[in-house]
Amino acid sequence: MFAVPKGYRFAAINAGFRKADRDDLGLVESDRSARSAAVFTRNRFCAAPVLVAREAVRRHATARAILVNSGTANACTGEEGVANCRATREMVAAAAGLQPDEVLPASTGVIGQQLDMSLWEKAVPRLVADLGRASAEDFARAIMTTDAFPKMAADEVSIGGERVTVLGIAKGAGMICPDMATMICVALCDAEVDSQLWRSALSRAADRSFNRVTVDGDTSTNDTIFALANGASGARAGEREMPALEECLTSVLQRLAFMLVQDGEGATKVMRIRIMGALTQDDAEKAARAVGGSQLVKTAMYGRDANWGRIVAAIGRSGAAFEPSDVEVSLCGVLLFRNGQPVAGDFDAQLEEPLKNQELAIDIRLGRGKCVYELLASDLTHAYIDCNAAYRS
Amino acid sequence: MFAVPKGYRFAAINAGFRKADRDDLGLVESDRSARSAAVFTRNRFCAAPVLVAREAVRRHATARAILVNSGTANACTGEEGVANCRATREMVAAAAGLQPDEVLPASTGVIGQQLDMSLWEKAVPRLVADLGRASAEDFARAIMTTDAFPKMAADEVSIGGERVTVLGIAKGAGMICPDMATMICVALCDAEVDSQLWRSALSRAADRSFNRVTVDGDTSTNDTIFALANGASGARAGEREMPALEECLTSVLQRLAFMLVQDGEGATKVMRIRIMGALTQDDAEKAARAVGGSQLVKTAMYGRDANWGRIVAAIGRSGAAFEPSDVEVSLCGVLLFRNGQPVAGDFDAQLEEPLKNQELAIDIRLGRGKCVYELLASDLTHAYIDCNAAYRS
Repeated sequence: MFAVPKGYRFAAINAGFRKADRDDLGLVESDRSARSAAVFTRNRFCAAPVLVAREAVRRHATARAILVNSGTANACTGEEGVANCRATREMVAAAAGLQPDEVLPASTGVIGQQLDMSLWEKAVPRLVADLGRASAEDFARAIMTTDAFPKMAADEVSIGGERVTVLGIAKGAGMICPDMATMICVALCDAEVDSQLWRSALSRAADRSFNRVTVDGDTSTNDTIFALANGASGARAGEREMPALEECLTSVLQRLAFMLVQDGEGATKVMRIRIMGALTQDDAEKAARAVGGSQLVKTAMYGRDANWGRIVAAIGRSGAAFEPSDVEVSLCGVLLFRNGQPVAGDFDAQLEEPLKNQELAIDIRLGRGKCVYELLASDLTHAYIDCNAAYRS
Repeated sequence: MFAVPKGYRFAAINAGFRKADRDDLGLVESDRSARSAAVFTRNRFCAAPVLVAREAVRRHATARAILVNSGTANACTGEEGVANCRATREMVAAAAGLQPDEVLPASTGVIGQQLDMSLWEKAVPRLVADLGRASAEDFARAIMTTDAFPKMAADEVSIGGERVTVLGIAKGAGMICPDMATMICVALCDAEVDSQLWRSALSRAADRSFNRVTVDGDTSTNDTIFALANGASGARAGEREMPALEECLTSVLQRLAFMLVQDGEGATKVMRIRIMGALTQDDAEKAARAVGGSQLVKTAMYGRDANWGRIVAAIGRSGAAFEPSDVEVSLCGVLLFRNGQPVAGDFDAQLEEPLKNQELAIDIRLGRGKCVYELLASDLTHAYIDCNAAYRS
């Protein structure tokens, strides 16, 4: 069981958006105003709920609820989509006795379809009535689409003698089969935090977690992280306590990000790609993304093939600064490439067993500086093609 | 049959580098000095033959022969690899009565393996003796690795009343299964051309052909285009005639580039992605590469799925400048997306037949300027995974 921070209630129902036997609408409510922070997709075609939530988070430092539906992404739906999103928020706010701007919306599912407002009208009273009956895990299940398992992580930290809990709930399996992928994460905390401190902590934590994973390189139109801090634990995190709370939040988000890659569409492996010795941070990230995004590296790892040539070729086209003769590449702890050529040895025999593991370490030293970057990436498999070449309906 | 420019002879033999029943070593010789031009991979880990040929082309305006082996890429092989490459060139030059710098080398095959020099010593006398016996197509077959078919294209242009022929021969199917991909192209012309004019014509022609295709986004360590112009037709192309000759060369290279994508590993479709109305050339290219490189777009096209949401999402993350409401997307000539939302209509019915075609047009208007870019990309299929997840040996 996961520790749940104080002062939050959950609801999860089947509204008929997706499948007859699965919940597809979830609500989290804080019993008091909570400091709100959010991170959104950088895709230019961002979805209607992203537009609406971004505006609410800009205007107000606090929120009371988070509303998430699966089945329909409400992306590329024009002004009608934005009006529908606002209407769903108003329905929930009216039923729960809140202001519309206190409800932060997120959606996930098929792109280009309008919300079915008659289903929403029937669902909202049931949803609000369910608050407090559902568990956090019920909520986690209601926001899944093609996820194979619900994704939750929790951590605790002591602040001023009080126990503070951070609970994270996420969904996402890449760009979601059979259609549009969306990553959504809700982080709930019961500390009292200054708004600016909370928002910068989330921004850095997102950068160190969700911004360092890739399944297929495709950024969704709906990616959203919401973080609430409601103070119900009685603990107050000021500037002095924030580093500990931020570490706690980062650790929760990193565990969720790992699960996202683990549950990547069709994935059988998680590659942990570490770039060391880069001249700049940007160089380190470029090299990591070239390797983690390479179809050839991804298929080689799926095939348990110690094919270091594909890793080297990906670094070579990454645009990162280095001298080819300085680069060192290790796979599962075995040094394969140094001084511009392969290290002597029977890699295939040495790596036969390690390559069967679910988590594979790819360590790359560029020998030019001190910057490091770590990226988690999934492999590319037959099941990925099955999932994404299948017709939507 | 393909028109072959005057003054060139071909050789193709089985040197035992790859398979018992397939030629794997080819040579083209011009009977007189030919203006040479070349374009090489930008991968930082470029192969030994790339280093050697680049130096030769920098030093000399002319060359007499092109030497290509398959089976071993001679990439990531350190100083021994460079010394071996020079040694093979010296053997061929001695046997054919040429200077070593007149022989331009290229290799394709597995990365990180040294050339087997004892096989080369046995092969070179037979290779040179074969000159004039093999056809251009024999040469085209000898440089194949996992290519499904040999790739040749020819075109003719009249210059000063003389018929000038350009013949192009290429190999490549993405990053080659079961290991390192390499694209190699040889373009032969029998006009007399000024060195500077010939080199800039090749550079622009490469930019408009091979630099506008993608199979898997992985740039190989060995990519090479060699172009020779030997004057054997008796025609001289000066500044006034060059535009016609450059068009001829470009057309040949574009046809070869198309074949490369058509024969992309596991490919069943060629997507012709046209970006129009971009603010800058760079924006147009970014948008095209985001769409053509998207795993989700590639799998949707393989699955014959009119999944325009994936195309829109790829444009949205490309970094190109545009207003979402200005963007228009058509697939196989059917307008799907406009004013930030789907156009009304039953796309699935309209596109069922067109999506069965082997060539699919994806037309995207950004509505911000006048720049255009066209990219050819293959789809992503089960056969691609079969090919690349299979163990090397």
